[in-house]
Amino acid sequence: MTIRAVVWNEFIHEQNNDTVKDIYPDGIHSEIARAIADDEISVETATLQEDEHGLPQSRLDETDVLLWWGHKAHGDVSDHVVDRIQQRVAEGMGLIILHSGHFSKIFKRMMGTPCSLRWREAGERERLWVINPSHPITQGLGKTIELPHSEMYGEPFLVPEPMETLFVSWYEGGEVFRSGLTYQRGAGRIFYFSPGHETYPIYKDPAIQTVLRNAVRWAYNPAKPWKDVSEAPNVPYDKAPEPLEPKGASLHKRGEAGYR
Amino acid sequence: MTIRAVVWNEFIHEQNNDTVKDIYPDGIHSEIARAIADDEISVETATLQEDEHGLPQSRLDETDVLLWWGHKAHGDVSDHVVDRIQQRVAEGMGLIILHSGHFSKIFKRMMGTPCSLRWREAGERERLWVINPSHPITQGLGKTIELPHSEMYGEPFLVPEPMETLFVSWYEGGEVFRSGLTYQRGAGRIFYFSPGHETYPIYKDPAIQTVLRNAVRWAYNPAKPWKDVSEAPNVPYDKAPEPLEPKGASLHKRGEAGYR
Amino acid sequence: MTIRAVVWNEFIHEQNNDTVKDIYPDGIHSEIARAIADDEISVETATLQEDEHGLPQSRLDETDVLLWWGHKAHGDVSDHVVDRIQQRVAEGMGLIILHSGHFSKIFKRMMGTPCSLRWREAGERERLWVINPSHPITQGLGKTIELPHSEMYGEPFLVPEPMETLFVSWYEGGEVFRSGLTYQRGAGRIFYFSPGHETYPIYKDPAIQTVLRNAVRWAYNPAKPWKDVSEAPNVPYDKAPEPLEPKGASLHKRGEAGYR
Amino acid sequence: MTIRAVVWNEFIHEQNNDTVKDIYPDGIHSEIARAIADDEISVETATLQEDEHGLPQSRLDETDVLLWWGHKAHGDVSDHVVDRIQQRVAEGMGLIILHSGHFSKIFKRMMGTPCSLRWREAGERERLWVINPSHPITQGLGKTIELPHSEMYGEPFLVPEPMETLFVSWYEGGEVFRSGLTYQRGAGRIFYFSPGHETYPIYKDPAIQTVLRNAVRWAYNPAKPWKDVSEAPNVPYDKAPEPLEPKGASLHKRGEAGYR
Repeated sequence: MTIRAVVWNEFIHEQNNDTVKDIYPDGIHSEIARAIADDEISVETATLQEDEHGLPQSRLDETDVLLWWGHKAHGDVSDHVVDRIQQRVAEGMGLIILHSGHFSKIFKRMMGTPCSLRWREAGERERLWVINPSHPITQGLGKTIELPHSEMYGEPFLVPEPMETLFVSWYEGGEVFRSGLTYQRGAGRIFYFSPGHETYPIYKDPAIQTVLRNAVRWAYNPAKPWKDVSEAPNVPYDKAPEPLEPKGASLHKRGEAGYR
Repeated sequence: MTIRAVVWNEFIHEQNNDTVKDIYPDGIHSEIARAIADDEISVETATLQEDEHGLPQSRLDETDVLLWWGHKAHGDVSDHVVDRIQQRVAEGMGLIILHSGHFSKIFKRMMGTPCSLRWREAGERERLWVINPSHPITQGLGKTIELPHSEMYGEPFLVPEPMETLFVSWYEGGEVFRSGLTYQRGAGRIFYFSPGHETYPIYKDPAIQTVLRNAVRWAYNPAKPWKDVSEAPNVPYDKAPEPLEPKGASLHKRGEAGYR
Repeated sequence: MTIRAVVWNEFIHEQNNDTVKDIYPDGIHSEIARAIADDEISVETATLQEDEHGLPQSRLDETDVLLWWGHKAHGDVSDHVVDRIQQRVAEGMGLIILHSGHFSKIFKRMMGTPCSLRWREAGERERLWVINPSHPITQGLGKTIELPHSEMYGEPFLVPEPMETLFVSWYEGGEVFRSGLTYQRGAGRIFYFSPGHETYPIYKDPAIQTVLRNAVRWAYNPAKPWKDVSEAPNVPYDKAPEPLEPKGASLHKRGEAGYR
Repeated sequence: MTIRAVVWNEFIHEQNNDTVKDIYPDGIHSEIARAIADDEISVETATLQEDEHGLPQSRLDETDVLLWWGHKAHGDVSDHVVDRIQQRVAEGMGLIILHSGHFSKIFKRMMGTPCSLRWREAGERERLWVINPSHPITQGLGKTIELPHSEMYGEPFLVPEPMETLFVSWYEGGEVFRSGLTYQRGAGRIFYFSPGHETYPIYKDPAIQTVLRNAVRWAYNPAKPWKDVSEAPNVPYDKAPEPLEPKGASLHKRGEAGYR
């Protein structure tokens, strides 16, 4: 078994901003791709600038877990591409949303909420506390992850109550943040992980890399893709599990498809 | 205190289909409006055909709880109107989604999942079991609600795991369905309630009417609307709760707005 | 409607420790009772030293919401009294667990988990962040509650994932804690609220008092007590909702009670 | 990697009741043990009659997943043994509760609720609907599991809202039941699965056996046991993550253990 991961990046800051370019000369996606590849995880990358943002249907169909980093250009991501990502998550593709991806179209779609938060870019210290050290995503970590410089993301974070709260962050400036959250949506697993500001070398941190590798494994659903997950099939009365005679008034003719 | 409810209906079947017209000559919305109005609930209605579907911003701002019935014309509902409903739910407006509204734009938006199910229109018996008889929404009911004729909605129902499962339905034809589910999204409470097929007089059933009245009260959030729920304000370093000196590299200039 | 609240306190530190006696000369229970009483809430108190700890069945049957403060003498609380509290919560009595009550028998019973945490008594600053400012329990608060001196309670906090995370705390010493959590158990609502160390005047803080008053209202279930919530009644075949003929082998004779 | 499973059975009906003896001459535990053993799962059994019910501490420490079948003799299970099972679940041991085990001490302990339900022994048909066909526990199943003869377990089922609802049952007599539910408690995963009445050969059903095998894999937590999960360690001020000077009054002397 090999898990097929794709790291998506909008890849703008690394081309336009010298600070970011110095840290990630090949782009954040390349750094993350190197970090998560191992014997069981094969990794490719995709970026905003590619045709269909590098995510045509055929490729998504071959993707087990998608990681997403975006910040400045959420609005430039095509709604059609977002549609097909959302469908693939419902079918069973794992989705890992990183940092400023909280405001990405796909994350807001999956959550149904504003996904808003408070923020401050002051290079302050962040300490992520591991809430459940026995979870697959937190294996190999200590009690905390310490980031000497981080962007502050502060509560309230406008997301649904998660399946599990895995990390909560402490900030030097006095705020807190639920920095690692899991969700189940259809057949797909979603993990939001907040660290990752582009002006600090956060994706080079070994503990952060461990979380990402673990998260890819956790988000992988080996079940056959649930291709008709969005269908609403009619079950004719003579195919009902129990014997059934139609009665009462009816809107649809026998066998007619439903509305949507 | 008066709760201001608006019942929205696409209002098509009642004009085009004789069976439905006979049951609801004034439209499903009028039937529901009569059913839920009482000393504490003031009710208005809105329909697809009205300008902005009867839901301009000014009216939504004065709405505490919105009930939604749609079936045939989900696609005709303007995305702009759906945007503002979604924002109002995040701010605290209650949302009650009825029956075929499972495939409405607003419900799919709030859930993030396909909201699909299996269905059969055979006039069969449905029995809703009350899972939590002590919940505000189930007050005044017995152990079950019996519907002599109903459309079957069958599992799997593709929605996130709810905050609470309030009803589960048994069908004569052999299926089951989680027919009453609650969700919290931002400041807003959401209740999905599956009975309500238009060719049977389900909204005239006293027990169903009791559920709807209860649900309006439950979904009402008396807190002041959370108007900036979707904002992501910057917290400057000198406004941090703890004394803080900026350090490290930075992408944004001081006081600059974030990207979205 | 009047909500009948009872504040329970083990009432030991206030008699044995001069620091605590100075702050709460009448006991923590009296301070809290004064803080939450208003036109809609009638309050009584009960302590460990009273007969049946002040909580005979007859009194619990007349209690809508029970608040619990214990620390040093969890083991001295009678299992029989805990049994009846647990049953009353299942029937619909609200339960508010304060501070060191995390290790009380009743809280560990309701959670099923160790309810453990890490702690430090260093008088450090605690800042509670409001995660959902639109929740009934957080009405009347600002974005945070600041406590100049507090005992640190740190993650991991070994409780089930809550229905809602309402507060998360920041500590001067570098830890975080999910300091306000809600649960639904049977017909009863449970709120855990961590501030309240006895050597600081935390229950005199107006914001803390606001939370407690709000929590009593939130935890109150006006539904009739679900007295048979723990029963497992047999439904004879001839009382089944659908016509049914017994078939197959059988362990119980007709009408026999089940095992427990 | 081999998962070490232990199947526990009270083993009374199979010795005292001819019907049950005919179906399970070696006991329900032996049937289940044969069903779940494979290349990756090693299985042993334990029964009520053995010393310490076959579950001394040393054996539980070597157990990854415990399956539990009890009915008539819940009260005969030693509280001390239940204590240690509960602790092992918190540390990471998986727990699978079968059928009438809903009223076992260990399940009521883990849930905190009455775990009550309604029941009928009439040999009626049960159909379990798969709610999430992409979940590890439902792999290899069709849309439903059909049991020609089953004991009816009916809602309301007094358990906390689950992490995931995996099965909902339809009964010939008109009831429904949430028949497969998952929970996370500390490091341990719990699965409740309702089919399994002793007078019908339910554990010989290949689909039921598939669920049990899948559930053992799902409940297995490969993380190192969280041995100190129930401890509440003091963090001295000079070991705080951030520099900290003690201030304010104090109940405990430096380094003193807390109360419990």
